[in-house]
Amino acid sequence: MKLGDGVEAAIHCAAMLAGVDGDGTLPANAMAEAFGLSPSYLLKHLKALTAAKVLESLPGPSGGYRLAKPAEQITLLDIVLAVEGREPAFRCGEIRQKGKYALDPSAYVKPCGINVAMLKAERAYRAALAGTKLSDIVSDFSENTDQRIVAASCAFVALNQRPQKRTINERKIP
Amino acid sequence: MKLGDGVEAAIHCAAMLAGVDGDGTLPANAMAEAFGLSPSYLLKHLKALTAAKVLESLPGPSGGYRLAKPAEQITLLDIVLAVEGREPAFRCGEIRQKGKYALDPSAYVKPCGINVAMLKAERAYRAALAGTKLSDIVSDFSENTDQRIVAASCAFVALNQRPQKRTINERKIP
Ligand code: FES
Ligand code: FES
Repeated sequence: MKLGDGVEAAIHCAAMLAGVDGDGTLPANAMAEAFGLSPSYLLKHLKALTAAKVLESLPGPSGGYRLAKPAEQITLLDIVLAVEGREPAFRCGEIRQKGKYALDPSAYVKPCGINVAMLKAERAYRAALAGTKLSDIVSDFSENTDQRIVAASCAFVALNQRPQKRTINERKIP
Repeated sequence: MKLGDGVEAAIHCAAMLAGVDGDGTLPANAMAEAFGLSPSYLLKHLKALTAAKVLESLPGPSGGYRLAKPAEQITLLDIVLAVEGREPAFRCGEIRQKGKYALDPSAYVKPCGINVAMLKAERAYRAALAGTKLSDIVSDFSENTDQRIVAASCAFVALNQRPQKRTINERKIP
């Protein structure tokens, strides 16, 4: 069993975006640089996160990525499923009815117990991922990481973030 | 995230071997036929299960495979790890220190919190797999499966199993 490397990149980027001020964004290139990743590789995963409504992408020269909702409302499960797809890791090929001695299809109406047991274990995995919010990751990072890393990360975000001008619709009308 | 198809084949074969009488065996070819699998594909997974001491392989024309221990002592985790390898699904590439702004290695002594959270979720998955014994799968099969399948499976095992002669060492000495 293997998760794609994209998951590591995706969670790190989301955690970094949680540090951006207000409705500002970070450009994909800056994040790629921060983690030593190829920009095209990272872009693929940022797009998947955007499609899953974990991130938002703003176009244009001052555009970039930002969280689509508060870090308290994003879980590790949201990120993993966005990058890896929603299908279960165990995929039953119904081999019980593929052999030479297969019976009438009516015998296989009930799901195979092996499939049921494997999916049950996967639910435990997903529940654990769903129980960890991006905001938990961020506060654990601030509190339990070497303070040199925390300082460097804050400095990086401060340097690379792009504040967004409010659009007319968002302006407060007195 | 994806588990290899081998897991489905491996659990089905192990469950079938749990039905063999005494110290008898089933030949790999018969199991491949029962599940519509190519014998060479199945052999690869049976060998992995044998290397992990889940199965035993007996050579010779009346040889084949049998469980290496009682079904009560084999868990789904034993089978999954035998087929898929023991490495975690999430593999941290330490991208936090691969970028342009990486600090001195001494800053990265503590493990990354994202890695810690991902491995914690994986422990929940493994605990669920470790909590299901092969004997649970077998008794659930006998009780909750369409009885036509149970009868066909028993008949198949009865027809294909190969009783083993005891070797001199195993013979009871009066
Ligand atoms: S037939 Fe797919 S797990 Fe049993
Ligand atoms: S550096 Fe690998 S998960 Fe953070």
